[in-house]
Amino acid sequence: SRSIRLAVIPGDGIGREVVAQGLKVLSAVLPSDVKLETEEYDLGARRYHATGEILPDAELASLKHHDAILLGAIGDPSVPAGVLERGLLLKLRFAFDHYVNLRPSKLFPNTATPLAGRPDIDFVVVREGTEGPYTGNGGSLRTGTPHEVATEVSVNTALGVERVVRDAYERAQARPRKKLTLVHKNNVLVYAGQLWKSTFDRVGREYPEVTTDYLHVDAATIFMVTQPERFDVIVTDNLFGDILTDLAAAVTGGIGLAASGNINPDGAFPSMFEPVHGSAPDIAGTGKADPTATVLSVAMLLRHLGHEAEAARIETAVAEDLAARDGAAPRTTDETGDALALRVTG
Amino acid sequence: SRSIRLAVIPGDGIGREVVAQGLKVLSAVLPSDVKLETEEYDLGARRYHATGEILPDAELASLKHHDAILLGAIGDPSVPAGVLERGLLLKLRFAFDHYVNLRPSKLFPNTATPLAGRPDIDFVVVREGTEGPYTGNGGSLRTGTPHEVATEVSVNTALGVERVVRDAYERAQARPRKKLTLVHKNNVLVYAGQLWKSTFDRVGREYPEVTTDYLHVDAATIFMVTQPERFDVIVTDNLFGDILTDLAAAVTGGIGLAASGNINPDGAFPSMFEPVHGSAPDIAGTGKADPTATVLSVAMLLRHLGHEAEAARIETAVAEDLAARDGAAPRTTDETGDALALRVTG
Ligand SMILES: CC(C)[C@H](C(=O)O)[C@@H](O)C(=O)O
Ligand SMILES: CC(C)[C@H](C(=O)O)[C@@H](O)C(=O)O
Repeated sequence: SRSIRLAVIPGDGIGREVVAQGLKVLSAVLPSDVKLETEEYDLGARRYHATGEILPDAELASLKHHDAILLGAIGDPSVPAGVLERGLLLKLRFAFDHYVNLRPSKLFPNTATPLAGRPDIDFVVVREGTEGPYTGNGGSLRTGTPHEVATEVSVNTALGVERVVRDAYERAQARPRKKLTLVHKNNVLVYAGQLWKSTFDRVGREYPEVTTDYLHVDAATIFMVTQPERFDVIVTDNLFGDILTDLAAAVTGGIGLAASGNINPDGAFPSMFEPVHGSAPDIAGTGKADPTATVLSVAMLLRHLGHEAEAARIETAVAEDLAARDGAAPRTTDETGDALALRVTG
Repeated sequence: SRSIRLAVIPGDGIGREVVAQGLKVLSAVLPSDVKLETEEYDLGARRYHATGEILPDAELASLKHHDAILLGAIGDPSVPAGVLERGLLLKLRFAFDHYVNLRPSKLFPNTATPLAGRPDIDFVVVREGTEGPYTGNGGSLRTGTPHEVATEVSVNTALGVERVVRDAYERAQARPRKKLTLVHKNNVLVYAGQLWKSTFDRVGREYPEVTTDYLHVDAATIFMVTQPERFDVIVTDNLFGDILTDLAAAVTGGIGLAASGNINPDGAFPSMFEPVHGSAPDIAGTGKADPTATVLSVAMLLRHLGHEAEAARIETAVAEDLAARDGAAPRTTDETGDALALRVTG
């Protein structure tokens, strides 16, 4: 389409700083005939303290009318744990049925990895985004007493599991290696595990070219550091995906580079793109935040909206920028944004 | 005590092979005046296929009368996922109230780590062993249909959380660095997270010398590979502990070295010691299994029973053996057992 109506939620901590750079690169990469209309939403800790509001219904309804959402980061130590995460970030993922939480991991040449030997890493995690232990089911009985019982319920449906598994097969099928690994813990979580595994096996029969593999989540973390090159596409539940993608980010140059898309493949709702990192309140305002993860999330956003050439230009710019960083003095958030904006226009 | 009544459950896959070496080293290290009585229990896949039995009540009752249990590994591809794990391994942990699942991680000099720069790693994970997502609560509705709903319930009690948190503070207090990190995901799993965090904070007031820290489980996996030296004692729930300790094993020389104790600190039931690794059916019978994790589990067992000097002798023998391995030809399971048995007597 020749216009992009973008909702922007800078959010908390470094969110605002990195989103500014994402928008800078987005404006720079877009051809002049694509009209970019951005609308900023003031949501997060500041708003919560000022008005008590987290995500009012009117704003949720309004967000729906955009082509996509760019989000910085949500969460602040001044707000009790979970209030903003569940009331805002997860509420958006659930309300807009972002059932594919897509998180690519690639070790670019020249970037730092804690792993010896610099393995060849290039995989993508398809994390389920609307079910599992993230549903908010659960509760607490006799709270705060010596007899408290607190529960958390992981909810998994045939619909929810099948659609994300199918999406993952499609992605695996489209990649050169055509390999899909299911990660779960079906030797302990037998009910959910059985649903995931049987769905994985059944849908797999429709994709005879895709090689499949199953790993328990604990074993998957081992391979992530000893043999990450074995992964091509991983499909997993919401919580295991959360854990694995932070670890994946750590081994592929750090959380400063990890992009993500919360995708509603049906197109009924806008998809939302955000860096995997959090609001990092400890470095907010210092100019130390690396905006690259947000810029790469903008590339995912562009690809999702059909602007493949522009997405690729951003990714090339990031790869070149990372290669050029070697030994150079550290830059500010703004300087990195400038460097990337320059490269995509160059 | 001058006698040890030991129950031995070799179990599946490489379990039998590594347990044989553990017993070899145990016999070698014990002074002649300590009487060792072992009783072997035939439990696992073979027994299940032969008789349909997993853990009969009579055997559970009989196991109770031992001072400790040495277990090899449980799980076999010929048995549906979860049947042996839940019916045997987890049943023992739950029946014998093994609420402290203790898993030390130490990077010995000279051992292989996938991490560049060989960080200084020496921490212990206190994993809760009798609650959380491991309780077997949950179920499936409309199983196998397009309308299936499968749930898993994490159950956390004030009693269960407090006793393991207290145990972790005691361990942190006794270590030179006196640092305790709680790992959870209290921004999403708010009910369980609130119980864990408030218990952690409240009990912590009784241990003013212990420095405390909180990490979300996803962030903890990052630090495990980028800054593992920051950890001293970690306390966490059953599932997060499962995941973190496999990752910890991977970064500290691999799963071939990781020992564990399923401890009932109250002494009401025998504690159970086992390598963290699984039954590894792919290498069973090849002589490739490294029995070191089992031998180190034997050291934990001896320490638990008050044989500190013998425990330390085994740990020294392992450290020396690892140092001597450098560049040497690979050994069989049996040869490694022999080498360790020789060192503890030498
Ligand atoms: C902030 C938090 C709720 C979130 C999650 O757990 O999904 C984050 O860790 C992520 O991975 O996007
Ligand atoms: C085999 C399995 C049930 C077990 C667990 O999940 O606890 C294992 O992974 C472990 O860590 O001891």
